[in-house]
Amino acid sequence: MGIEHLSPEAITSLLKLAKRMDPRRAHPTLRGRIVALLFYEPSTRTRISFELAAKTLGATTVLVAAESSSVSKGESLLDTVATVRAAGADAIVIRHPASGAPLLAARHLNIPVVNAGDGMHEHPSQALLDAYTILQHKKSLRGLRVVMVGDIAHSRVARYNLHLLTKLGAQTTLCGPPELAPEVCATIAPGVRIVRHMEEALHGAEVIMMLRVQKERLGGLQLNVDDYVSAYQLNAERLKLARRDALVMHPGPIIRRMEITGEVADGPQSLILEQVRNGVRVRMAILTTAMAAARPRKGQ
Amino acid sequence: MGIEHLSPEAITSLLKLAKRMDPRRAHPTLRGRIVALLFYEPSTRTRISFELAAKTLGATTVLVAAESSSVSKGESLLDTVATVRAAGADAIVIRHPASGAPLLAARHLNIPVVNAGDGMHEHPSQALLDAYTILQHKKSLRGLRVVMVGDIAHSRVARYNLHLLTKLGAQTTLCGPPELAPEVCATIAPGVRIVRHMEEALHGAEVIMMLRVQKERLGGLQLNVDDYVSAYQLNAERLKLARRDALVMHPGPIIRRMEITGEVADGPQSLILEQVRNGVRVRMAILTTAMAAARPRKGQ
Amino acid sequence: MGIEHLSPEAITSLLKLAKRMDPRRAHPTLRGRIVALLFYEPSTRTRISFELAAKTLGATTVLVAAESSSVSKGESLLDTVATVRAAGADAIVIRHPASGAPLLAARHLNIPVVNAGDGMHEHPSQALLDAYTILQHKKSLRGLRVVMVGDIAHSRVARYNLHLLTKLGAQTTLCGPPELAPEVCATIAPGVRIVRHMEEALHGAEVIMMLRVQKERLGGLQLNVDDYVSAYQLNAERLKLARRDALVMHPGPIIRRMEITGEVADGPQSLILEQVRNGVRVRMAILTTAMAAARPRKGQ
Repeated sequence: MGIEHLSPEAITSLLKLAKRMDPRRAHPTLRGRIVALLFYEPSTRTRISFELAAKTLGATTVLVAAESSSVSKGESLLDTVATVRAAGADAIVIRHPASGAPLLAARHLNIPVVNAGDGMHEHPSQALLDAYTILQHKKSLRGLRVVMVGDIAHSRVARYNLHLLTKLGAQTTLCGPPELAPEVCATIAPGVRIVRHMEEALHGAEVIMMLRVQKERLGGLQLNVDDYVSAYQLNAERLKLARRDALVMHPGPIIRRMEITGEVADGPQSLILEQVRNGVRVRMAILTTAMAAARPRKGQ
Repeated sequence: MGIEHLSPEAITSLLKLAKRMDPRRAHPTLRGRIVALLFYEPSTRTRISFELAAKTLGATTVLVAAESSSVSKGESLLDTVATVRAAGADAIVIRHPASGAPLLAARHLNIPVVNAGDGMHEHPSQALLDAYTILQHKKSLRGLRVVMVGDIAHSRVARYNLHLLTKLGAQTTLCGPPELAPEVCATIAPGVRIVRHMEEALHGAEVIMMLRVQKERLGGLQLNVDDYVSAYQLNAERLKLARRDALVMHPGPIIRRMEITGEVADGPQSLILEQVRNGVRVRMAILTTAMAAARPRKGQ
Repeated sequence: MGIEHLSPEAITSLLKLAKRMDPRRAHPTLRGRIVALLFYEPSTRTRISFELAAKTLGATTVLVAAESSSVSKGESLLDTVATVRAAGADAIVIRHPASGAPLLAARHLNIPVVNAGDGMHEHPSQALLDAYTILQHKKSLRGLRVVMVGDIAHSRVARYNLHLLTKLGAQTTLCGPPELAPEVCATIAPGVRIVRHMEEALHGAEVIMMLRVQKERLGGLQLNVDDYVSAYQLNAERLKLARRDALVMHPGPIIRRMEITGEVADGPQSLILEQVRNGVRVRMAILTTAMAAARPRKGQ
């Protein structure tokens, strides 16, 4: 089982559960259960968020990082996850550079596998915490005008957010140069439109989701960094073009003076740290839901 | 104290204790005790197995991996273990590329030092869990026909297994090309014989222990990978040459299509994941025995 | 808040609290609190000391090592610590190669930030545990003749120890070649003097603090290793020049046959392992004090 391909109702009930979770208090619902964190890519924020979510729920955690794992000995992903499960894991949280890796693992195991980001594919827990964060400030996502700016093509955050936001009724606009926001991105979910000029895209926006842009990637695409910054950086001036109470979001890590100015990142409309904060409770809800849905283990 | 050089009686009692251990239930016998895991070599399965064993026993664990340790500053092994002990460790689990390192550490410390694999020397907890796993399926090891195939010369698993299996009365046959199973290997324990042809070795085998073979090593030995695979891979056809109920074992990580086919690794005779599963309870027994035997610490 | 710039009274009360701490017994004063360990540099002893101190106090710990963190993605230190805090950390222990990094972090967060060593700047918990260790053997530091030998210029241990020892009334002599103990070091704290000949410096010494000397550094300074060893190594013969009951200390990791002989390091006057042992209780006191002084968190 996984948490992907959830119905709007399932998403809503997961977000409701997240609201009841309190990361400041022990919820020992997973006491005696083992949650393995398999990180095939470095990720401070996602890893510690899941680790703290699992620990707050009373679970025992065990961390496997790619560099120190059997991966270096040529073991396949499926053999690694089967081994981790056999060693006692009751759930596996997996971050992997290959799209579909968590799904593949989930199909072969009879314990929950939670996707903590796979390749350029999806990052469901991030999308869920983003939706949760928006709903702390807006009554509903229905009809909400969301603008997503930056490297849409290579962002797993963008991909899953598009699915989720659309499912919950938001109206999403993508913004970036053709190299980062190619026309095909509009087909990820129904009703998505692409606007090249940030000024135009921001007009009337109620939520602005900035994405991380990697310098190296721009270089590879023959895009000039200065040109990118001057056209797509979210600064105070541009922010004024959006709705007065527009929310500024970013999945992090942010690179100040690149895709966003410090003034905006630290400003009153920024929800960047709130997103991190909400991440723990949302992941507590994800783990709780995943474990509750899991069939009791056979054998052992 | 260490767990090496155990008598058959001590081994039997340790295996009996393992049977009483339940990795699904908290056994807080080590609550308040600190188990340090010193891994000078990467090892997913052994490390998480010991870590989960210690945590299930209620111990606090602390992990030291070579790459992030004082080792890089030139500190000696003995100074590192003495430091870890002084910082509060009540037991140290050590994996080291140099043969004899855990024994050396044990001699200098008055707390239990558990060998989690040293160089090409020994890997006692693996041998114990292998014996445990066999005994879940066979009444006794006495007279049991065990075949070990692959890189005997460079395998710590092979080495310690040979000692242990022989002590418990098994009849072991080694199989591999002279480069990987040189004649001298027959002298590791009494009664061991070497057979070059896998077909001959498998005849009548009741347990088949496959060993990991590293491509790089074959290259270094001027052995052709394809030749090796065609002569020594355990596939479904060869498996039929063994006893009908022969058990297939492998310490992992396995490399499918190299030393073993996926069909056999996942087949009904394969105990590969059962070995991993049994690893935790066997290591719980090892830690419990080691701590019980430890003299109370002097001073703080 | 930080633990730097403490008054002599605050230091004394912290050392008294350390005396009441027992690393062998659970002090669940931080149960339910999260302590994040941010290590931007490898350090076995400091990291496990703080980790065990936090765990003994009942805290949940989460470790972030530089190599696997968002640092590699270009995130700034301040954004990383703000993220870790937002994810739930109630205190952050930080080790960083840049002088002043922990102080910078502390200024931007409303939770305790504990300095676990920054660049060549300071290492307050080490200095406190050194003072604690001396006070287990001497009634007071007032007037105590302390000699510090080795690489003063590049040692954070030396720097903070000089401040602390001077504050508590010790009379400190620095000893080393001009490249490692330049005249300017005498200005770190009032009353400090520099003596070039180790024999002269040791005369009448009651405490000898040896510092780690890195071979590479000597090479960079065009200092000959053999010359250094013959002039500044603490061996049994030189030790006799100090007071009969002189205490030998070293922050570790030690390099035997370099700055100190094994005979002296393991001898009856050596407190090297006692320093490690005291480290845990001193860090328990530091964490307890830091958390008690912290303002209750706003929001969340």
